[in-house]
Amino acid sequence: MDIAKLGEFGLIDRLTKDMETKNESTRYGVGDDCAVLSYPDKEVLITTDLLMEGVHFDLTYIDLKHLGYKAAMVNLSDVFAMNGTPRQLTVSLALSKRFSVEDVEELYGGIRLACEKWGVDIVGGDTTSSYTGLAISITCIGEARKEDIVYRNGAKNTDLICVSGDLGAAYMGLQLLEREKAVFYGQYDELARKLKQAQAEQDKQKADNIQSQMAALRDFNPDFSGKEYLLQRQLQTEARGDIIQKLREAGIRPTSMIDISDGLSSELLHICKQSGTGCRIYEKNLPIDYQTAVMAEEMNMNVTTCALNGGEDYELLFTVPIGDHEKIEAIDGIKLIGHITEEKFGKVLVTRDNQEFELKAQGWNPLSADESPVSEGK
Amino acid sequence: MDIAKLGEFGLIDRLTKDMETKNESTRYGVGDDCAVLSYPDKEVLITTDLLMEGVHFDLTYIDLKHLGYKAAMVNLSDVFAMNGTPRQLTVSLALSKRFSVEDVEELYGGIRLACEKWGVDIVGGDTTSSYTGLAISITCIGEARKEDIVYRNGAKNTDLICVSGDLGAAYMGLQLLEREKAVFYGQYDELARKLKQAQAEQDKQKADNIQSQMAALRDFNPDFSGKEYLLQRQLQTEARGDIIQKLREAGIRPTSMIDISDGLSSELLHICKQSGTGCRIYEKNLPIDYQTAVMAEEMNMNVTTCALNGGEDYELLFTVPIGDHEKIEAIDGIKLIGHITEEKFGKVLVTRDNQEFELKAQGWNPLSADESPVSEGK
Repeated sequence: MDIAKLGEFGLIDRLTKDMETKNESTRYGVGDDCAVLSYPDKEVLITTDLLMEGVHFDLTYIDLKHLGYKAAMVNLSDVFAMNGTPRQLTVSLALSKRFSVEDVEELYGGIRLACEKWGVDIVGGDTTSSYTGLAISITCIGEARKEDIVYRNGAKNTDLICVSGDLGAAYMGLQLLEREKAVFYGQYDELARKLKQAQAEQDKQKADNIQSQMAALRDFNPDFSGKEYLLQRQLQTEARGDIIQKLREAGIRPTSMIDISDGLSSELLHICKQSGTGCRIYEKNLPIDYQTAVMAEEMNMNVTTCALNGGEDYELLFTVPIGDHEKIEAIDGIKLIGHITEEKFGKVLVTRDNQEFELKAQGWNPLSADESPVSEGK
Repeated sequence: MDIAKLGEFGLIDRLTKDMETKNESTRYGVGDDCAVLSYPDKEVLITTDLLMEGVHFDLTYIDLKHLGYKAAMVNLSDVFAMNGTPRQLTVSLALSKRFSVEDVEELYGGIRLACEKWGVDIVGGDTTSSYTGLAISITCIGEARKEDIVYRNGAKNTDLICVSGDLGAAYMGLQLLEREKAVFYGQYDELARKLKQAQAEQDKQKADNIQSQMAALRDFNPDFSGKEYLLQRQLQTEARGDIIQKLREAGIRPTSMIDISDGLSSELLHICKQSGTGCRIYEKNLPIDYQTAVMAEEMNMNVTTCALNGGEDYELLFTVPIGDHEKIEAIDGIKLIGHITEEKFGKVLVTRDNQEFELKAQGWNPLSADESPVSEGK
């Protein structure tokens, strides 16, 4: 159905119908100039993201439902990274004419799914048109007790550096998708060239044959078997609220925390800069999934570089006092990768063969023949 | 300077330097995963807008500083429309390559100016790239005491309907700008056609002459004298926090309120729908500036239609109990335009010659020969 036919208010009604608010802090949601929230006993956390088609996502890779889910999750992730609990979301969409009402429902369905998973209420937003492509702006509101909030600036000398899950898989998932897209277009372009030739030669049978090959290629279903995890990490982003919960249950309050959106190196440097410290992490301790390693090998990339600089993992990077060592070790899915040092000792990566390198936000690549830093093209 | 040279973090540092937070509720601003706010005694108001180049603004009409100012003001306006006080703002920008660091500083300068005017803190956002044009997403956070909040749904039978300022001027300002642009392109296209002809005839002197006329046209400075107010209303949007202040001082709490972004008719219908009432407004009472009337005459448009359906006035539309009649009359800059009725009496406009028409959200146009509703092309 054409969006213009429904109109802005009709579309909003359709998207938000059956939506019930779940949080006591949500006093009034969609339907007025503002949403009204109530946070008498907690601090209010606010984070926002703007995603542009072509820059942040490519709709040849990701369907609208997964995109909506991811757009919401990356915002929830920021609230978890403050040791908070997400409560409300506003969703603004700018849509070009190629999107139908059903498309928007798909996208919104993904956003709602992410919200339902973490008990978050959609309380407002804006729905408008765009001349070119899709823009998604999401703001998330969360809460935390004042004494529980974890900033980036609290890391102390000797603190342990921890990371949840594993690293580099989302980035390798993107590489995989881009490779398949390139293969597809390469084959398609080659056929198109041959078709032109056949047509010039007026060889109708040959031309028909090529055209049916092209049609078959359009139904091209790339074989991703054995690489499902990489795709999942790229396309089905999960915010690590479960880790926040586990830390709470274990009585651990991190001294600093950040979510890994731009790559481990970049985020760790933020923590060090804002805390006025150095750090020392160990290559051998970086959590890397088997599929990530295999894919890096296949693409002739250095897997450590991918783990350090590949983005979109949305894992949590945090520091804890050294006294919490045993408690942290007892939690599944958290890896100790190094420790915080005094600032004067710099930001150091220790390789498997005990060489030391300075951590850089991008393009650190001492071990690989690959000239281009992995963070390019993100 | 090229934005890529500075990088995202460099740009953010540059835009937010010297920025001090002014509100007690702002506990932590730019620089972490989330901003941290504290609202122990008040309700929190949240509103958000997404503005896309080509749809919401045309950079041939508006400079970046005014655009930033307007983008902020339309959000502050939503908080005022809840009878609240705006406190914090987040700013997300997506920029295509044609924008320089200086451009972004201009835009941000306008946003900061609007924030300074109303004591609002910029506490976060997102800065990213775009393939096509500029996208601006702003979220505003405000506060109000629970008992002070004014929704759209509180209008009661016999309440007086009030509007601040005057109506239709912002819309006429847009018409004026579009007319001048059309004149400019008309002349330019005509010269380009003549130039082509002269070149075809190899008449160098004639071609040179036309080219110098084209150069002069590029310095074209349209004459807006006598229409300054219309331009100001279109380009320098002001949120009516002053009206909110005056109402408070007079001890008036509106029963319902909304800001006029889509046109008076549309907003009044929102109030009636959500309050379950009808309304009766009088054409003769609509506040219309002299310049608006003159311009409507010039363009052969019906000025009442412009006042009812022209958008972007950002005035406040509100209802008060009939007992507040004298108090309201004593306040400068507020006009009584009619009253709330029972739902069964419908939504009625009474014309100067005492005819009655049903109010429609768009395209109400009983009095004019102009076939196209003014709200088209917004």
